[in-house]
Parts: sequence; C-alpha cells; structure tokens
Amino acid sequence: MTEFTKVGVTGFGTIGERVADGVEAQDDMELVGVCDAKPAIPVRAMIDSGQRYPLFAANEEGAEELKNAGADVAGMHEDLVEEVDIMVDAAAPGIPAEHKPIYESTETKAIFEGGESNEVVDTLYNSHANFEDAVDKNFVKVLSCNTTGICRSILTLNQHFEVKEFTSLIARRAADPSETHKGPIDAAIPSPVPSHQAEDFMMVYPDIDSVTVVVTVPTTHGHLNSSQAVLDQNVSRDDILEAFDSEPRIKLFQLEEGFDSNSTIFDYNRDLGKMRADMYEVPVWEETVYTRGNTAWWIQMIPQEAIVIPENVDAIRAATKMQEDSQEAMNRTNKYLDLN
Amino acid sequence: MTEFTKVGVTGFGTIGERVADGVEAQDDMELVGVCDAKPAIPVRAMIDSGQRYPLFAANEEGAEELKNAGADVAGMHEDLVEEVDIMVDAAAPGIPAEHKPIYESTETKAIFEGGESNEVVDTLYNSHANFEDAVDKNFVKVLSCNTTGICRSILTLNQHFEVKEFTSLIARRAADPSETHKGPIDAAIPSPVPSHQAEDFMMVYPDIDSVTVVVTVPTTHGHLNSSQAVLDQNVSRDDILEAFDSEPRIKLFQLEEGFDSNSTIFDYNRDLGKMRADMYEVPVWEETVYTRGNTAWWIQMIPQEAIVIPENVDAIRAATKMQEDSQEAMNRTNKYLDLN
Amino acid sequence: MTEFTKVGVTGFGTIGERVADGVEAQDDMELVGVCDAKPAIPVRAMIDSGQRYPLFAANEEGAEELKNAGADVAGMHEDLVEEVDIMVDAAAPGIPAEHKPIYESTETKAIFEGGESNEVVDTLYNSHANFEDAVDKNFVKVLSCNTTGICRSILTLNQHFEVKEFTSLIARRAADPSETHKGPIDAAIPSPVPSHQAEDFMMVYPDIDSVTVVVTVPTTHGHLNSSQAVLDQNVSRDDILEAFDSEPRIKLFQLEEGFDSNSTIFDYNRDLGKMRADMYEVPVWEETVYTRGNTAWWIQMIPQEAIVIPENVDAIRAATKMQEDSQEAMNRTNKYLDLN
Amino acid sequence: MTEFTKVGVTGFGTIGERVADGVEAQDDMELVGVCDAKPAIPVRAMIDSGQRYPLFAANEEGAEELKNAGADVAGMHEDLVEEVDIMVDAAAPGIPAEHKPIYESTETKAIFEGGESNEVVDTLYNSHANFEDAVDKNFVKVLSCNTTGICRSILTLNQHFEVKEFTSLIARRAADPSETHKGPIDAAIPSPVPSHQAEDFMMVYPDIDSVTVVVTVPTTHGHLNSSQAVLDQNVSRDDILEAFDSEPRIKLFQLEEGFDSNSTIFDYNRDLGKMRADMYEVPVWEETVYTRGNTAWWIQMIPQEAIVIPENVDAIRAATKMQEDSQEAMNRTNKYLDLN
Repeated sequence: MTEFTKVGVTGFGTIGERVADGVEAQDDMELVGVCDAKPAIPVRAMIDSGQRYPLFAANEEGAEELKNAGADVAGMHEDLVEEVDIMVDAAAPGIPAEHKPIYESTETKAIFEGGESNEVVDTLYNSHANFEDAVDKNFVKVLSCNTTGICRSILTLNQHFEVKEFTSLIARRAADPSETHKGPIDAAIPSPVPSHQAEDFMMVYPDIDSVTVVVTVPTTHGHLNSSQAVLDQNVSRDDILEAFDSEPRIKLFQLEEGFDSNSTIFDYNRDLGKMRADMYEVPVWEETVYTRGNTAWWIQMIPQEAIVIPENVDAIRAATKMQEDSQEAMNRTNKYLDLN
Repeated sequence: MTEFTKVGVTGFGTIGERVADGVEAQDDMELVGVCDAKPAIPVRAMIDSGQRYPLFAANEEGAEELKNAGADVAGMHEDLVEEVDIMVDAAAPGIPAEHKPIYESTETKAIFEGGESNEVVDTLYNSHANFEDAVDKNFVKVLSCNTTGICRSILTLNQHFEVKEFTSLIARRAADPSETHKGPIDAAIPSPVPSHQAEDFMMVYPDIDSVTVVVTVPTTHGHLNSSQAVLDQNVSRDDILEAFDSEPRIKLFQLEEGFDSNSTIFDYNRDLGKMRADMYEVPVWEETVYTRGNTAWWIQMIPQEAIVIPENVDAIRAATKMQEDSQEAMNRTNKYLDLN
Repeated sequence: MTEFTKVGVTGFGTIGERVADGVEAQDDMELVGVCDAKPAIPVRAMIDSGQRYPLFAANEEGAEELKNAGADVAGMHEDLVEEVDIMVDAAAPGIPAEHKPIYESTETKAIFEGGESNEVVDTLYNSHANFEDAVDKNFVKVLSCNTTGICRSILTLNQHFEVKEFTSLIARRAADPSETHKGPIDAAIPSPVPSHQAEDFMMVYPDIDSVTVVVTVPTTHGHLNSSQAVLDQNVSRDDILEAFDSEPRIKLFQLEEGFDSNSTIFDYNRDLGKMRADMYEVPVWEETVYTRGNTAWWIQMIPQEAIVIPENVDAIRAATKMQEDSQEAMNRTNKYLDLN
Repeated sequence: MTEFTKVGVTGFGTIGERVADGVEAQDDMELVGVCDAKPAIPVRAMIDSGQRYPLFAANEEGAEELKNAGADVAGMHEDLVEEVDIMVDAAAPGIPAEHKPIYESTETKAIFEGGESNEVVDTLYNSHANFEDAVDKNFVKVLSCNTTGICRSILTLNQHFEVKEFTSLIARRAADPSETHKGPIDAAIPSPVPSHQAEDFMMVYPDIDSVTVVVTVPTTHGHLNSSQAVLDQNVSRDDILEAFDSEPRIKLFQLEEGFDSNSTIFDYNRDLGKMRADMYEVPVWEETVYTRGNTAWWIQMIPQEAIVIPENVDAIRAATKMQEDSQEAMNRTNKYLDLN
C-alpha cells in the first residue's frame, strides 16, 4: 500500500460533500472524483461554482440529469471505483449495501456511514475507540454523529482517568437545515430508552457501561448532549477542562463570551469564514462542566453535518494501512484539517 | 381554623387563573375572588365568558382598565385580602414580596409561586417532600414546575425504594404558548451546570443528592425531564412502572399508542375536553422506563402551566392547618381535582 | 325528508371529531354514531372520557383494536350507514371515494371534505357562495379551510359592496398541532402561483376574479390570510369593519388588547373554556383593516381545525333539504353553535 | 474627490461586518478599519481568524474588552473617523445619531442604516430609486432590507413597463440566526396595515402607489415577499421573467430544481462556498411568477443579512461623488461583488 491513497466518494449529499472536501485537504490522499444519481442542491452548488471535483454518475438516467444541470460527467460509478483504492460510500442508507458486490469484485475497500446496517461491514469504527479493528479491513462503518461525539469526550476523559460508566441525554436536532419538510414545529419527542447510541458505543468500546437517552427537538444546527460520567477517582472541574482542552477534536466555548447556543456557534463559524460554516470539533461549554466527587457533568454540541469527517478520513487511513497506529493517523488527519 | 377556608388569588395570569379554578373545585374551600392589574388575555377571557369569579383590581388605574374591558369590579386588592383566610399571590415575580406588608398587617397568610425570592417566605414547599414544614406557616413558596415534577417522581420512588441520588436533564420549553415574543426559533440553549432545580429540591428534601442540567428548546407545550435515579436495591422495569402507577399525580402513557410527544399529550387533553387542555399529572412514557441493576431511567413531561396547581391547593391546606398530615391533604386535593 | 335528520360521521380525526360535536349541538339533528379504523388519539380521548358517541369500526381488524383500547363497538361502518340519512365522511383523502358505492347502494347522501377529489362529488360547496347548488344533492364537498374563510370575508363584503376582484396571500400553517413529524422547523416555503384556493373559490362563485398565493410557515395554530379586495365604490375603514361585524362567522379582535397572533387567539379560546380551544369564527384584526379609494386590505386568521364545521352542518341541511334557503340554514346552524 | 475612497465602518455586527467585506472587495475603495464597543461574536470571529481589518474601539472600556479578547486595537472611534473620507455607521439604532456631531465637526460624510431615524439624514436612499438625491450629500440612510428588495424588483419592472401600483405581503423572518432569544416559537404575528415599507418606498420613489402588509413568522434565513404589481400594459409571464433576469441583483431559482424554501437557498449558498453563506441578490422563484392581464404576481426572498450591502457601497459612491450616475455606480459595485 502506497502512502498516497486514491479515494472516491459516492453520494454527494450532506456527508458525502464534506468527506470529499476533507479528503481533498489531505496532502497524502488524492480525491479521484465524486458520484451522485441526480443534481440535488449540493451537486448543483458544486457544478455552479466551477465543478471543483470530477463528477461521476450513479446511473445512465442520472448522467442525463447531471448534464442537463450543466455538469461535465466524467464517467459512471463503476468507472470511479476502478480508479481508486478506496470508496467512501455516503449514499442513502441501503444503497451502499447494494454497491458492496461491485466493491468486492474489484477488490476495492469501502467506508460506510452511520445509517448503514452493521451486517454488511467488517467492523464499526471510531478513531478513539478501535482504530486497530479497522486496519486493513475491507468494509468499515464510521459511527454516526452523536456516538462519534460521545466517543471523543468519553474516551478523552478515559485517557486521563478511568471512566467507569456514563449516561448521555441527547437533545437531538430533528432535521438538518436542508430537510425543510421534517418537523416537529412545536414538540419534543422522546425515544424509547435506551437509545441505540450507547449500544453502538459499547460495540466499539465494550469496557465502559453506558446508557443514552434521546429527546428530539425542533432545531437544525446541532445536537446537544448532556453527559454524566463516573470516574475511578475524584476530579476537579479544572481536571476535566484540561482533559478536554488537550484533545484537538474538542473545542471549549464560554457562555459568557456570547456562545449561548448551537446556532450561535454555527453563526460564529460563518463569521470565521469556514466553508459552509462547518465545524469538525465537538464544542463543550465551559460553564456546563461540573464535578462532584468522582462524577463529572458537561454539555457538548454535535455539529451533525461535519463532525464525522475527521473519523472518515482516519478510517481511510486504517483500512488502507496508511497508518497502523491510531494516534499517528489522527495526527495526520488533524494536521491537514487544521485541528490543533 | 375552620374546615371551610376562604381563598383569594391575585395575579390572574398563567398560574393564577389555574389556581383559581383548582381552588374553586375544592368542596372545602371558597374562592372569594381574584385580582389583577389589567385586562390581559386570561382576564379578558374570564370577563368575556361571564366573569365566573368576583374580580378585584390591583390599583385604581387597573380598575378603570378592567371596567373598560367590560368587567364588574368588586373592589381593590386590599378589599379582597380583608375577606380571606389566605391569599395565593401569583403576580409577576417581585410583586408578591411588595404585597407582603399588607398580608402581615392584616394577619393574612399567603402562598407564593416559584419565581419569588426564597428570602421572603418561611419555607419552600412540596407536598411529597416537606408538607409538615408548611403547617401553620404564614408565607409558603410552592416550588416551580420542573422541581415539583421531579419531587413527584423521585419521592414516589423513594416511598418504594430508597433513592440514593439522581440526575435530571431538563429539555426546557422556552416559552409558554402565550409568550409569543420569546424564542429561540431554531436553537438549543445550554444553562450553566448545575441548574437551580436540584438546589431547590435539596432545600425541601436534603437527604437525596442530586444534579439537574437544563437545555432550553423551542417548544411550548411542556418540558421533558430525563431522569436517572440510583436506588438502594436492584429493581426491574415493572417495579418502577408499578411505583409510578400508584401515584395519582403521575400518569403513564405509551409511545406506541400514539402519545409521541409533549404536544400530542396536550392535544389529547384538548380532546378529553379538559379546561384549557390542562393537565395536573406528570406524564411518564412507559417505553422510556428502563432499569439496569440498581439504577432506573425514565422520561417525564412537565405540563408547566398546570402542574403546580395540586401542590398550591395542598399548600393552602398546610398553611391554614386544614390538614396536618400530607397524605390526608393530598387525598382531599386529589379527590376534588379528579386525580386517582 | 323529515326536519329531524340522522347523521353519521366516519373518520374521527381532526375534522371528523369536530363535525360530530357540531352535529350533536344541533337541536334538529341526531348524531347516530361515529366510525374509525383505529384508536388514534381523538378516538382514544373519546373512549377515555366516557365514549359520548356510539362508535362503529371501519373494518374487522379495526374493531379488535378499538375494543383493545377499551371501546364499546356498536357495529361496522355499513351498520352506521344503514341507520342514517346522511354521512359526513371525513376519512383520509381517497377513502371517501372508496366508500361512495356503499352510499350509492344504500341511497345515503354524503358530505366530503376539502381533501377529496372534485370528481367524485356533485358539487363543491360553500354556504355563502352556492348553498342552492347543494340542495338535495347526493354528494357534496365542503371547501377546505382557507377557501372557506376567504368565502366568508369576501362574500360578506360582496353583500355590502360589489367585490370586483381580490388577491389573498396565505401564510399557511405547516402542520396541525397533532402532526408532530411535519415541518419545516426553520423555513418559509413558497408554492407555485396561483395556488388552488382561488380556483376553488371561482368554482363556487365564478363572478369574482381572484388570485391566491401560498407561503407555508412553521406554525400550528392557524393560517393567516392577507387579503386585498377591489370594490365597486370607495369605502372607509369603518365600512369594512361594520360589514365584517355583521357576519356571525367573522369575529373582530384588536392587536392593542393583546390579541397579537394566531397562538394568542388560540390561547384565548383555551381560557374561554371552549372544547379543545376550538373556534368556528374567522378572526379579523381591526388594526389590519385598511382602505384606500375602492380597495380594502385586512388580515384574517383561519383556525384550520374547526373553521369548516358550520359549513359542514349547513351542507347537511342543504343536501337533506332541511332548509332550501342559505340564510335560513345558516341561521339555524349559527344558533345551535352559539354564533351571533 | 479622488477615485480612491477611504472608508471606515463602525458597528461590526450583522450589517457592519458585511459592509466591511463589501467595501474591501471594491478595487476603488480602501477599508481603513472597523470599530466596535465590545467583542460580540462577529468581532471575536474576526479576531480569532487573524484580524483581517484594523480594529478600533468605540470607547476606553471597549478597548480593554477587545484587548482581553485577543485583539490588536488600532485606536479609538475618533481616530478612525480622522483617517477616512466616509464612515458607514452600522451601530445599534440611535448610536449613529449620537455620532453625527463627530462626523460634522470633522467634515466626514456618513452612511446610516435602515433602523436609524429619518430626521438625522439628508436623504433616504435606494440605488434604483433616487441615486441622484444622495450625490454629494453628507448623511445618507440606506433603506432597510425588505424595502431595498422591493425597490429592486418593482423598479426593475418599472424600467420595462410602467408600474401603476403594487401590494407586497411580507412574511417577515422574526429573528436573525444570531438572535437566539427572539421568538415566536409557534405563532404568526400580524402588524397593523399598512406597514412602514410602502411609506419608505414612496419617500424614495413617490410615483408608484403601494401598500405593504407584514406577518412575522418563526424563521431566520430570510423574509419572503409576495408581490402583486399592476402595470400599464398586459404582460406575459415571460416578460416578467426576462425583466428580472436582466437585473444583476435579482436571481431566478426554480422550485422544481429543489430550491424549495428560504433555508434551502441559504444552504445552497453554504455549498457554493460563499462567505457566511451570504447572498447579495434577491431570489425570485420562477414558478411563482404569474400574470393575468396587466397584473403580475411573484414571490421573492430577502436574505436580510446581506441584501443591503450593494446599496451601501453604491451610497458611498454617491455621497463621495465617485460616480454621479446611478447605473455607472451600480456597474462598478456589481463588478467588484461578482454580480452579473
């Protein structure tokens, strides 16, 4: 396996377009192209802004539609697969599983996203939890946004103190900004307890017992997780803040500086000039970090559109054996994504 | 102290109008009248629907405004105070404290609401927690809606199992339906941790250690609390459901029957024909009740407009010594409010 | 045709449950029973509050489910049809058309709601527009909520002044309070222009040229229509206010009295003690009535859940020939619904 | 007056930060610096992303706060005023009026924003309406967002056909994305009719009679205006589309391509890689353009955060006599803002 990895991305939606940009930013990867079945908004925007990536079509009908939208179509999905070492398949849930025979017959590795069935992959994946399980694997599924964010903060604490168990309440954003027909408008919707995130967490890191609870609320710019973690020792608030501050993929914010909500942090990223106002880090509000004895509480935000991008890039590194050590892989990814 | 208690209510807003109806429903109390300073919507509605209660004015200017709105004004605030054994003062926070000298000089007891300062009362109050502290007291403050709901479920469990500690994560409704200028529109807002509810809880029931965490979300028809309680023994899900089912002020709902949100439960109460769609009970969703070892989780709803009414009525009973035993008092209140 | 009409209602959802109550309130009608296929929230609420109406089941499977929910099932849909003079079929769009052969074979008349196809009825219907078209007809479709409200205000004006043409811009509530999965959360969605309401209007009243425009917005407690009508003469603001005030199905509100939004008017109806906070009238805000020359502007609210109930009752009167004059029919309906 | 104009911007909030970027993009202007009183989110973001503009402090206390937030403070407000030909004062309404004596004493011209009182300026301003009124003036107020957007479309039509009169219904976004405490959550709020926008329009262009109507709705990413214009001749839909298409500051979108709401267009601008997802143009949805006889209807969006930037830049050109012809000025502004 060379150090310079050729990557394709199929499904140029909310996750796919961001994975493509994240891969493009890596100095040791080449984004060969992206693929989609029709000119939805992200595809149109890429076409209308100069089509920075070669665009492949998922099928013949899609190719026509893409051309009608002004695209220069570089080929079909199969053509893209031929040219790459690994595909990130971020198509709608179920479609990546349908694509699997293509990947198998061409001996192309693939990364799948959180909505895909566990059955069709060799391993679930989180960089802080089980990098080694994904090394040289053919089919790797990156955990979904909330679980990825939970892994980051819990396993960061676990590097400093042993985490015995945790509970996380997820105030789940009901829709992405682009999902204009999803609600609710004025309701908060409980899910059965426990929700799947803790189960997913324990599949990649069985040593820490956990429960997650979900209430879906009408907001679009990020989930909020309120966590409670029991540690093996008494800790101070500063201990927790220092631990979080040491992790490049977690970023501290202060309520008193005006960062009063998920939407304000989104707005701050707009003002920073970030592409799409995207944020790769998990924000933690300092004033919500609290400790009593051996227990810590905090509230973190999950910028659901972009948070899994670093882990997708790490997963490429693992599956293609670009790195075989998690910290080395994350360091590379972080460097190219300006996370420090 | 007679068994038949004369009650006045001042501040005919969201809480006051509901306390008035709750008192009126008690066979052993007489609602002498209600008082407000201007014809806001609840006052207008009462006037427009036949003015079922004698209406007093907070001041001369208000008296004019009330008359202009069609009211028959029975007198001034002081006149109402003269006629009653006890006032429930549900005026905007700060005003009850200003009224205190009037109550003192006329030797009239008063119940204050959750927004009022602790400094101006003899005791904070919750029926399940510290009824006895309010017996024969002059100034009693009923805990606010979330803390009242937390007391109900935690102390109900505590009657069946000893609760060692708990955490409650409050997805706080950002505004009442009537507060049309409050937001947010599309944001979730964290509060510093711990929030005041746990502190309030421990002031009425110091034996159980607790932490509460608040995230404010854009919904109007009820808070959602996700609680985790550590008990002195292993419990099953059925144990918890049975305990909740035994408490008349808690009501079980099933997600699978279609009760999928706070707004759906509000809508159900509309269809039941309840006045204002009000609900005195704390709904608990059965599918959210979960146990592991000695720990229990569940999600409950706080119908913030009406939930404190039973406890206000109980507080009247305690302060006026109508009953000196909490269970006897609650049984009376429940009977007249059809809670069983 | 007797003066005492036997009515059945099938589809006990948002509209059906309100039609049932509206029919029950008529002294010259008998509500024989209601019918549904499963125990959704409105059905459960009726069962849980004492099952005030005989309940029939749409099919055998539904009968089982209804019994499991605690219902006393009086029979099947066909049994109900046998017992009545006329059915109001408020089942989900498409189902009434499927029921039509049953109604035809039993020579039972039927009223359909706004979502049903125009093809399957003898006439579209609005009481102010074309009562006479529905007299003695077998299948009559009541116009949907916005068009009904537009008919009321436009044709009320047209009784006082000739309306030459109008435009109505509908800020459409995106979901009913019970539709907790519909959005948008933070978006305003334009529809193609013209929208169907003007077309529907002109089908029942072809003499007035009109255009309607729809923008869907995230609110649940009522549409807002901003209308502009060109009259045959110059008018004053008072002229318009007097005209609206003369119509029992229109109700004037003042912003300065605190009625500042659709939700505030909903809340006022809660405080009035109306069943479900329902409102049959179209609210018009006085401060939004404006005139210049021969043109008038105003903003009205459409309480979408209940507004069509009076017209449904009128339609029963027309189809069954209880009355053959629109004003006589409306007077009866209004009297029993307390509209004056 | 030189061709190379020195500009300062004070009030680095929603409008100010965008004016600064718009001025910086002009090849014939120099942005000397920006000024604010405290490190709110836009200021923090500029500091945190490398402080691309010299930052001045509104007062001594603010200077300290800015330094504490990591800023390099270049001087005080008065220092900035000394160095420039013209200030754009986008501070909170009322403050620009307080600054006026400073501008007068230093003979510095100033542009004020829509929230400022008409009394303190020499003229209200819109580029399509009255450029000539602002030439060489000292104090010019740019119209607010909705009126600016209305001027663009109405006066574009007026160049092709004479517009006799128009009505515009504004579904007003209740809050900016950054205003997380403003509501409503679930309400639509009517304003008295007529609203101020038509009055403002007629102050800059008295020849066209108009009425505007406002309903405030819970969305953050743009107002929607539904307009109806009466022309001096019969027109076709294509006529209107061609007219709009000819104006660089109006941009056509198709619902059927997926651009289904204000939020979707915002999202598209995110995907285009626009700074903050900002949009200078007024979107018009093609499917909402409709004509009948001599009347046209359409729905347009007002991206309230950025829409007035081109007109602010034009106003600088007028006040400083960089250009004395409106079209010449707009062409320059458009060129540097990539509007074509």
